[in-house]
Amino acid sequence: MNSIGRIFRIFIFGESHGVGVGILIDGVPPGIKLTVEDFLPDLNRRKPGAAGTTPRVEADLPNLMSGVFNDFTTGAPLMVFFENSNVKSKDYDAIRLTPRPGHADFTAYKKFNGYNDYRGGGHFSGRLTTALVAAGVIAKKIIEPVSINAELIEAGGSADIEAEIEKALAEGDSIGGLVECRAENLPLGLGEPFFDSVESVIAHIAFAIPAIKGIEFGSGFAAAAMKGSNHNDEILDETGKTATNNAGGINGGITNGNPLVFRLAVKPPSSIKKEQNTIDISTGKQANIKVEGRHDACIARRVPVVAEAAAAIALADLLMLNKAIQTPAW
Amino acid sequence: MNSIGRIFRIFIFGESHGVGVGILIDGVPPGIKLTVEDFLPDLNRRKPGAAGTTPRVEADLPNLMSGVFNDFTTGAPLMVFFENSNVKSKDYDAIRLTPRPGHADFTAYKKFNGYNDYRGGGHFSGRLTTALVAAGVIAKKIIEPVSINAELIEAGGSADIEAEIEKALAEGDSIGGLVECRAENLPLGLGEPFFDSVESVIAHIAFAIPAIKGIEFGSGFAAAAMKGSNHNDEILDETGKTATNNAGGINGGITNGNPLVFRLAVKPPSSIKKEQNTIDISTGKQANIKVEGRHDACIARRVPVVAEAAAAIALADLLMLNKAIQTPAW
Amino acid sequence: MNSIGRIFRIFIFGESHGVGVGILIDGVPPGIKLTVEDFLPDLNRRKPGAAGTTPRVEADLPNLMSGVFNDFTTGAPLMVFFENSNVKSKDYDAIRLTPRPGHADFTAYKKFNGYNDYRGGGHFSGRLTTALVAAGVIAKKIIEPVSINAELIEAGGSADIEAEIEKALAEGDSIGGLVECRAENLPLGLGEPFFDSVESVIAHIAFAIPAIKGIEFGSGFAAAAMKGSNHNDEILDETGKTATNNAGGINGGITNGNPLVFRLAVKPPSSIKKEQNTIDISTGKQANIKVEGRHDACIARRVPVVAEAAAAIALADLLMLNKAIQTPAW
Amino acid sequence: MNSIGRIFRIFIFGESHGVGVGILIDGVPPGIKLTVEDFLPDLNRRKPGAAGTTPRVEADLPNLMSGVFNDFTTGAPLMVFFENSNVKSKDYDAIRLTPRPGHADFTAYKKFNGYNDYRGGGHFSGRLTTALVAAGVIAKKIIEPVSINAELIEAGGSADIEAEIEKALAEGDSIGGLVECRAENLPLGLGEPFFDSVESVIAHIAFAIPAIKGIEFGSGFAAAAMKGSNHNDEILDETGKTATNNAGGINGGITNGNPLVFRLAVKPPSSIKKEQNTIDISTGKQANIKVEGRHDACIARRVPVVAEAAAAIALADLLMLNKAIQTPAW
Repeated sequence: MNSIGRIFRIFIFGESHGVGVGILIDGVPPGIKLTVEDFLPDLNRRKPGAAGTTPRVEADLPNLMSGVFNDFTTGAPLMVFFENSNVKSKDYDAIRLTPRPGHADFTAYKKFNGYNDYRGGGHFSGRLTTALVAAGVIAKKIIEPVSINAELIEAGGSADIEAEIEKALAEGDSIGGLVECRAENLPLGLGEPFFDSVESVIAHIAFAIPAIKGIEFGSGFAAAAMKGSNHNDEILDETGKTATNNAGGINGGITNGNPLVFRLAVKPPSSIKKEQNTIDISTGKQANIKVEGRHDACIARRVPVVAEAAAAIALADLLMLNKAIQTPAW
Repeated sequence: MNSIGRIFRIFIFGESHGVGVGILIDGVPPGIKLTVEDFLPDLNRRKPGAAGTTPRVEADLPNLMSGVFNDFTTGAPLMVFFENSNVKSKDYDAIRLTPRPGHADFTAYKKFNGYNDYRGGGHFSGRLTTALVAAGVIAKKIIEPVSINAELIEAGGSADIEAEIEKALAEGDSIGGLVECRAENLPLGLGEPFFDSVESVIAHIAFAIPAIKGIEFGSGFAAAAMKGSNHNDEILDETGKTATNNAGGINGGITNGNPLVFRLAVKPPSSIKKEQNTIDISTGKQANIKVEGRHDACIARRVPVVAEAAAAIALADLLMLNKAIQTPAW
Repeated sequence: MNSIGRIFRIFIFGESHGVGVGILIDGVPPGIKLTVEDFLPDLNRRKPGAAGTTPRVEADLPNLMSGVFNDFTTGAPLMVFFENSNVKSKDYDAIRLTPRPGHADFTAYKKFNGYNDYRGGGHFSGRLTTALVAAGVIAKKIIEPVSINAELIEAGGSADIEAEIEKALAEGDSIGGLVECRAENLPLGLGEPFFDSVESVIAHIAFAIPAIKGIEFGSGFAAAAMKGSNHNDEILDETGKTATNNAGGINGGITNGNPLVFRLAVKPPSSIKKEQNTIDISTGKQANIKVEGRHDACIARRVPVVAEAAAAIALADLLMLNKAIQTPAW
Repeated sequence: MNSIGRIFRIFIFGESHGVGVGILIDGVPPGIKLTVEDFLPDLNRRKPGAAGTTPRVEADLPNLMSGVFNDFTTGAPLMVFFENSNVKSKDYDAIRLTPRPGHADFTAYKKFNGYNDYRGGGHFSGRLTTALVAAGVIAKKIIEPVSINAELIEAGGSADIEAEIEKALAEGDSIGGLVECRAENLPLGLGEPFFDSVESVIAHIAFAIPAIKGIEFGSGFAAAAMKGSNHNDEILDETGKTATNNAGGINGGITNGNPLVFRLAVKPPSSIKKEQNTIDISTGKQANIKVEGRHDACIARRVPVVAEAAAAIALADLLMLNKAIQTPAW
């Protein structure tokens, strides 16, 4: 449902055009220095502004509603809330009856019997990733000195990202992209056997990010075409350092002391200015739609900091879990 | 950790060369006809025997230890246990000190401070997927008439699977493969917002299967290079049927009434007869290893029925969850 | 931690003298009519005002921050927030260093290494029960037509509640009380075997309410002195109706078709005007404390509606869980 | 359902007259010395044999099916299984249609639509507490040097336990009892705010034990009749030691450094030799029942070691949780 985590637990809520979006976080250790300023760098990276991103710009100022006192975490649940201010709900009236192909409009309507808040995608909006990024900021503090860095390495099938985006904008179309994320300075031994493998936990959170269609670790899909003699990473020393990193830093679901590496496939946004066929859900008949309003032509551009948050949240939980089980109880 | 699921909950246990492996299942509805024979077809599909699979053959007879009475499920927890009989622990003595590159030997040793059962990979062995398949059999009964079918569509980078395997065997090497899984007759509306998206739950379980390096849904990684105008699936009618299926049957994390499609990248097995470099963990010095014993040259060949189990387990839980929330409480 | 529930899941947060308190609720079915007015009757029952309750009066207006659209629940997470307005933090400065005997001041300080928000008990304040009552309002709607009614049946050891409270007020002291809660029109069969017995789930939530020292179902502690021939409730008909109700409506952890009955022991509030011995945590030396400020002399008077909420939350979750498992999947 | 715990997680299964009963445990730290002999003292305390206990005697030898290697825990899931051998299922044929008043026969039949294993109470049998005791043995090792001791302090309303039991046996009746449990050497600071209060977690597990009708901590129900000036425990020093222990070692849900004390009300067993009225579920008409077979006249006599297990399991989980959150992540 809308929460995840065993110890570092997060619970996300809100809608694109409602009061706001937010995240409630449990399991935050007390005594971590935390102010509004700590959130701004990552929130700014997620904000639109660059070419190919929506002209809707929110202030995205995090309101620390609980769990922080005198600029330190208290150990009580920490709630971060973002008000929606720059909301133009009228933009979405047309969409209510003619669901956008490729979007959650149709499935949300059907699943919730028409009671869903359809404005701007409601609870299914990419706006909720603001809240995920906020949780990532706190997770990153918990896992220090682990560093996590993600970047967009391809868009529209090319590494010339700006050119591809310009082309898509000119055509009133949208494009997908490929995001790579690396975590370094990770301790050896994170991840729990079977269902809490590092890949399982990161993938679980990553697929909650709207528009993600695939995830691969290390060699990923290329491994399907490889031989063991090429794929196996030779172990060099007791720290677990390997000559290659086809494993992406994970063996048997457990970090092996090398950089953790994964890639996310981000689909092209479904809201495009070109005319598309859909149905009118009030009549069941065919209808056409051109999505006007404010949309991203390449949402993948805004995904890296969200991918970092997903990884940080997963690793914070696994780090705390590992500590709980692998060290003496007292 | 070793359990997953919100309502249909499974908890896996056991070791490759210990007493056996098993799975404990909660949330099984009462009144489902269930006998030992129901398990055999899927268990047989997972068994070795074909070219490229290990010569270790276990009887794999499921022992129904609880939760079944007079051939029907009772509603109490259902435990299925598989004894280990064909165990040759001596094969693994060499491996104890020289961890196989690419395997969990090293990470398990480090994580568990040397207390792990190293024989045959212990709790990290692919043998545990026997138990996962058993849970899949029950899940498939719960989700009837949904049908799930997976197959190996590539090995070693080619669709000529047998030829690739023969080549790997001849070289004392191993190869990876690509498995595709499809679920049909799914109701529209399964999957919960944000963290229990259909992709999240399936990916979580899929990455618990040893050797999986990537998962993609629908267009998957190809989507990263596509345009919205090509990727968006035109909605044809009120049932949600679409002209194409780039979404892989899922929008916004929720099933959209079309077939669910995902693919798994399976890496080549790490146990190969070729000489590899590793370290001796007792001295920290470089060492060589040739893995003799009984191993699979292409474990991907045995993954399809395991992938089906992963999908069935995820869908059973999501189906029950959807029923709990979306229909009147009484 | 701060969340509970399998399907109807709640996550509570906030502090007595911070921005406010709130509750985030997942698993709320879509299409339930819900407005601010629906919350007021139960919130008013929890409010102080009667003799023996604190003069701190908050407006307690619920802000529906998400999950409600056009006065109906949407199926997305529902967040209810209560701002703190009538806050006098200066009252608590003295308490910071001299923990009140019987209160969480000392344990919270120690557990959270002094980072806890100590003002008014912070996250340990009874004020958080406002949020619990709000969740109870929604739970009651889900379980309709089940009716739940709790009342204070004793205070200070006597059924003459008003007289006992007057006496306590006159003495600058406080008193405990006994609350009885009954749920009627419950379906037969709620509760899951072993750890999700009806008693387990209700008791878990009930002991989260500050000041609760005991809970008993049906005959409760009296059963320890009874014989089976007196205690067993004779079954009268197929609906499960029994001649007596020593079971309190539960057998084997499962509702039996009779009224569910439980009682809560509420301790006297720890904040009293009489002088008490404690320590100064800055010096470790003995100190005295008289708790001035605004406090309840008999918090038990405000517990009934909170007990109802605890029961409603537990029953909503068990009702949804039972439906998920006991009815056909489709 | 049948599992509980956040880190130290247990999952119970089995039936009274099926193959056996068992418990699967996750989150067990590696490197704990553990042999079959470690279980025997507590298992023997739970066994019948004394006056007032059933003549059914099982060997109760624990089979360690996974998670232990060379007499040490491995960190993998640990499964303990107890075979049923001394089973007389014929004893229960009469009970199938005429549910015992006060027992789960009727509710189990209704909840599971008649598919439940009714023999000897099936999954609702007190025999499952064997498995709980086994988990308690492991939990006690984790929480060392905490010591937990429970005893039967009353039966049939009197402290002359043997006399009361003799009287009940002579009358073919049964009696209830009162069990007190104390945990000493507990660290200050265990328990998490709100829903994972120490009382919540212990009560949750305690009410899974068949026949428990009430639980109270410290002063318990007596607190309802007390004044704050008498109830508040004066804090004596920085370790949290208090002059009295009305709190039962817990303030605000968190251990305060004093002994943890709770009491359980155990009802009289429902299986008695005296004739009782019930119904015949095949006809819905009134019927009589005298329960022959092998039953306990005072099951409370066997509860102390089970209560200790409940407390140990709760405390192990809370200890590991506290360590995860309250100490630095690395």
